Amino acid sequence: MPAKSPVIVDLRFHPDQVREGLKRAFPGREVINRADPANEGHDLTGIDYAVLWKPLDDLFSRATDLKVLFSGGAGVDHVLTLPGLPDLPLVRFVDHTLTTRMSEWIVMQCLMHLRQHLTYDRQQREKKWLPLTQPEAADLNVGITGMGVLGSDAARKLKVMGFNVLGWSKSKKEIDGVETFAADGLDEFLGKTDILVGLLPLTAETRNLYDAALFSKLRKTGALGAPVFINAGRGGSQVEADLIAALNDGTLKGASLDVFQTEPLPAASPFWAMEHVIMTPHAAADSDTYALFAHVERQIERFESGEPLEHVVARNAGY
Amino acid sequence: MPAKSPVIVDLRFHPDQVREGLKRAFPGREVINRADPANEGHDLTGIDYAVLWKPLDDLFSRATDLKVLFSGGAGVDHVLTLPGLPDLPLVRFVDHTLTTRMSEWIVMQCLMHLRQHLTYDRQQREKKWLPLTQPEAADLNVGITGMGVLGSDAARKLKVMGFNVLGWSKSKKEIDGVETFAADGLDEFLGKTDILVGLLPLTAETRNLYDAALFSKLRKTGALGAPVFINAGRGGSQVEADLIAALNDGTLKGASLDVFQTEPLPAASPFWAMEHVIMTPHAAADSDTYALFAHVERQIERFESGEPLEHVVARNAGY
Repeated sequence: MPAKSPVIVDLRFHPDQVREGLKRAFPGREVINRADPANEGHDLTGIDYAVLWKPLDDLFSRATDLKVLFSGGAGVDHVLTLPGLPDLPLVRFVDHTLTTRMSEWIVMQCLMHLRQHLTYDRQQREKKWLPLTQPEAADLNVGITGMGVLGSDAARKLKVMGFNVLGWSKSKKEIDGVETFAADGLDEFLGKTDILVGLLPLTAETRNLYDAALFSKLRKTGALGAPVFINAGRGGSQVEADLIAALNDGTLKGASLDVFQTEPLPAASPFWAMEHVIMTPHAAADSDTYALFAHVERQIERFESGEPLEHVVARNAGY
Repeated sequence: MPAKSPVIVDLRFHPDQVREGLKRAFPGREVINRADPANEGHDLTGIDYAVLWKPLDDLFSRATDLKVLFSGGAGVDHVLTLPGLPDLPLVRFVDHTLTTRMSEWIVMQCLMHLRQHLTYDRQQREKKWLPLTQPEAADLNVGITGMGVLGSDAARKLKVMGFNVLGWSKSKKEIDGVETFAADGLDEFLGKTDILVGLLPLTAETRNLYDAALFSKLRKTGALGAPVFINAGRGGSQVEADLIAALNDGTLKGASLDVFQTEPLPAASPFWAMEHVIMTPHAAADSDTYALFAHVERQIERFESGEPLEHVVARNAGY
């Protein structure tokens, strides 16, 4: 039996997180962590696997024998645009942990808008005791754009919390208890949506999707008084000038944003100071490095025992 | 067939809410809304039913023929301590809407502490882009005190979101997937709890239950660094001086409070200005008046057709 192929780890995560995650990962297999300066001149030929996220520029020119690429995150747009990307199977990171974390964030944001957290927070600062008229979850339609693994899990949990849930995706999905729409049903979907949730990958079709025209089609007669926009997909899908205008003129009542056109968000962005915007720094579903490496291990095991890889990205679709 | 008995409505809610709720309520039955000045001198004898919440002082001395009392809220401590309370069946308000709303609030608060909302909120105000190390729901034990209708529903939904859930109640409950404890298991329960949720009625046994000694028994080694206290039960169960001290000395990492010893919370209370406290003005599960009157109608129907009333309060237990 030949020695197991080493794994190249080329992740621009926080170095401590990577080191911590690698402590128990890949038993019996050499790991070349490119964040470790000691590995700077390491020979990368003859190695089958690379786990990557914003890798060093010379990865593909030096690691010339790779057989499988593993994305360090759920999104792969950052990988697909890499110069010199070889034509190899690219496995996305789909993981229970990542899905669970994303749903935590989505459900929390929907509840915070439903339960008027921003108003209560302001009242607390003003020492004002004033219960507000309060709709319940069943009074609101949450419309999710992007009904893959993440969107479906969020939909199920939002339903448990009492929300009505609608789903829109390129090809119509069938999900129990969720009214779903295909690409051409976008306007009907928007017209029924009170809280719009973005969970789309960044592709040519989703770039700049969330613009003034789209915001104006959301339901205006919902129980919150005006619609809310929540984005945990990709910042490149939102036209930020339009979003800011819609928030300022009341087309939108509020927003929760985890992603931005430019990240880290520049200090000059108006979002930081907007009272009806809840922000997190692309942390909705941070990759847990333990889970990432466990996922890569499982797929390597499948690959080496001749089973098909799972979660392989369809290059032409871009996700 | 004799005419249907009128219903006395004696609720110190917002008058508009009561009027709105009564629009479609009690068809074919006279309603005497005591918030309406026109009813000031109305004869209250010969009437079977009263729906009450902080009723006018003369209710029981004038409505001398009542057969059933209906509490306007889930808690009945305010009713049980009324002077002159007649020895009649007292029906609590148990309602899908109320349960759903309470679970919305509990799940939202648990998620906000899990997902470090207060820290991200401060970072937003400081224009600081800094993803935090993030545990997931499965890393935390949420311990619910009070496992009645509200506690059981919250437990189920917290489990769907991924939290581990523990339950403590006077008599041990059996709930699928929830580790439960009876009265004498309190210390063991506290020692395993990272987020303590209060959903207890106010009784002699629960008054001042949440004190310095109790806070010091919560698990200190959990993934949040220190335990969190969430109370949506009754303010009389929390010793506020102890709670403030525990928050200030780090025994508790944070708190979410919907109830207070004195309500409305006095302007002098330190809670208003505490950065690690999330407050709402006794609004976690505001009674929806439509739902309240629908519930009373259902119970009157049962009563008049000879079926047993549901949700009757056990006077000696106090809930």
